[in-house]
Amino acid sequence: MEEFTVTPWEVTGKVDYDKLTKQFGTKRIDDGLRERIKKHAGELHTLLQRDFFFSHRDLDLVLDDYEKKKGFFLYTGRGPSGPMHIGHLIPMIFTKWLQEKFKVNLYIEITDDEKFLVKREAAWEGIQKHADENIVEIAAVGFDPDRTFIFKDSEYVKNVYPLLMKTAKRINYSTVRAVFGFNEQSNIGLMFYPAYQAVPAFFEKKRCLIPCAIDQDPFWRIQRDVAEGLGYKKTAAIHSKFLPPLQGTLGKMSASQVETAIWLNDDEKTVKQKVMKYAFSGGQASVEEHRKKGGRTEVDVPYQWLNMLFEPNYRKLKQIHDDYETGKMLTGELKQILADRVNQFLSGHRNQRKKAEKTINRYLYDGKLAKQMWSKEF
Amino acid sequence: MEEFTVTPWEVTGKVDYDKLTKQFGTKRIDDGLRERIKKHAGELHTLLQRDFFFSHRDLDLVLDDYEKKKGFFLYTGRGPSGPMHIGHLIPMIFTKWLQEKFKVNLYIEITDDEKFLVKREAAWEGIQKHADENIVEIAAVGFDPDRTFIFKDSEYVKNVYPLLMKTAKRINYSTVRAVFGFNEQSNIGLMFYPAYQAVPAFFEKKRCLIPCAIDQDPFWRIQRDVAEGLGYKKTAAIHSKFLPPLQGTLGKMSASQVETAIWLNDDEKTVKQKVMKYAFSGGQASVEEHRKKGGRTEVDVPYQWLNMLFEPNYRKLKQIHDDYETGKMLTGELKQILADRVNQFLSGHRNQRKKAEKTINRYLYDGKLAKQMWSKEF
Repeated sequence: MEEFTVTPWEVTGKVDYDKLTKQFGTKRIDDGLRERIKKHAGELHTLLQRDFFFSHRDLDLVLDDYEKKKGFFLYTGRGPSGPMHIGHLIPMIFTKWLQEKFKVNLYIEITDDEKFLVKREAAWEGIQKHADENIVEIAAVGFDPDRTFIFKDSEYVKNVYPLLMKTAKRINYSTVRAVFGFNEQSNIGLMFYPAYQAVPAFFEKKRCLIPCAIDQDPFWRIQRDVAEGLGYKKTAAIHSKFLPPLQGTLGKMSASQVETAIWLNDDEKTVKQKVMKYAFSGGQASVEEHRKKGGRTEVDVPYQWLNMLFEPNYRKLKQIHDDYETGKMLTGELKQILADRVNQFLSGHRNQRKKAEKTINRYLYDGKLAKQMWSKEF
Repeated sequence: MEEFTVTPWEVTGKVDYDKLTKQFGTKRIDDGLRERIKKHAGELHTLLQRDFFFSHRDLDLVLDDYEKKKGFFLYTGRGPSGPMHIGHLIPMIFTKWLQEKFKVNLYIEITDDEKFLVKREAAWEGIQKHADENIVEIAAVGFDPDRTFIFKDSEYVKNVYPLLMKTAKRINYSTVRAVFGFNEQSNIGLMFYPAYQAVPAFFEKKRCLIPCAIDQDPFWRIQRDVAEGLGYKKTAAIHSKFLPPLQGTLGKMSASQVETAIWLNDDEKTVKQKVMKYAFSGGQASVEEHRKKGGRTEVDVPYQWLNMLFEPNYRKLKQIHDDYETGKMLTGELKQILADRVNQFLSGHRNQRKKAEKTINRYLYDGKLAKQMWSKEF
């Protein structure tokens, strides 16, 4: 029996996503929902097609609201605990797609406070440095600068403080203890923090949709508990799986193990070396054996990365799948395809990052939405 | 056996102040300390002479620092749960005296967040109204406008947020539970709040001295726990007794029972009526009996108010004491003296309040210290 754990601070083991949706009380995204999205968006993002975004809460209600012209808004975030890897960018890429297709506002919370509070060794100044760097990486994704507001918790706190207090007043210790497993030794900052993570879902009276990895879902349960009492809608969410670490399909790509991840600042050579050396392969022990028996895409990390995001063309993916399974394609060839795709992606990201360094203030301070937000108090 | 309870949120019973200092682990202010204060101040404030400020933590170290030219600073506060009564103003009056005599900076925290969080029925907007009105009452005390910064927690939060997080990270649930008696039903805002109340004691690297009623002492224990780890000094405190409510010497003057208190906006007639009708008297049941047996100043509220603050002249007080104890002075006469004194005090306060309405911004935003504080981040 395989065991797994999924909390906002830990993902271990081989995650059984069907079991997880049952545990968390969320719903699988089914063909009906995918059809409705496709109808409005004109297409389906690869991450939806390939079931990487696989689970949701109230996504049907979001689409109802959209169809009734009530609109909705997007909210996602980033905990700036260090540099970012490809896994961190995926929800952002998907969120950008949603924003583009549905023309909606997006709020991106940079949780500098939470990362400082949760990491015993973290210094405030170090977290700030990561936060500022992360914001550039995120801006590089290319969100609509007049419909996107990126904010650090520590910077925006004055504007949200009344709402933060109203939210915190409705959440008691037994709730956060049950949801997050806090105990006698937990610091009071961290115990308070779930209130702040709920707050951006109250930035508009419309329904909020949160694209996120499923381990963040517990935070939204808290929001959903208190939303209606505060005069807001319960937030909806659309959950992703975890991008498997290079070494295999257990857990998630971890920021604390450098070699398990492809970092956004890895250069071409490093990417190729990592993929070649570390990526867990479904290939056979020798070329002869591989030609005879074929590889197993089911456990092969390069194949899985291609499947999730890096080979959007279904026909090409199918060809890779068949060639690898039959032994026609060797492990080195498959890895080379992934390395090329990842490098292509990172090269584009680097270019966009250079541009973002100049446009960052539109997301933070002087784009249309950002300006509105700085003149508002909640 | 008489029981009493003293917590930041409840004071009941007849407080045994000797027992309380032992319970809280504070020290009585003795003649030696009073002499040292007198040496530097040139005089002793009535509230010190009459043992109303009766207890302390590290007041001796504050005086050491002062004598060694290291200096110190003052910090006090107000929870804006409603209009203010005379009892609320006493620590402010004493604090003003300390500031004047020692020429030190003073920070006054208006805890709008805490009052909102602790009072189940409180609305945010109502607390803000009280806060703004309370600030005018406090400013009317006449602090040095270039050495005093008055701030609402909700307004100043951005400037202190990093320090607030650093403080909160060092306080765990078991500590706040033990100190404040929080439980499963306590809201997470209130559980977090002790971190904010500690923060102003870190506004300077010098030693902080906090004049306050003794029920607030638990907050400073938290500050003292974490101060040195954060690179600051443990705060010192100087504690007052509670001004007894008009009706008798149990508990403290309560904001929730209107008739037990003299409010800062009570007019002359109301003050006289309240003192005459409600003030608990140590006099006898009839004039004849009173003339024969005399009154008991020990339980007489008007006498106690005169003793604590309203009759600074010791000789006059002694005369009142002797006349009342011997039956020469009747209860009505004693009450009339207090009513006059209180009305004299309130009349002065009303005049100063009118001026304060115009000068308030110097304490809040544009006095020398206020300006410095708004340009600082902690």
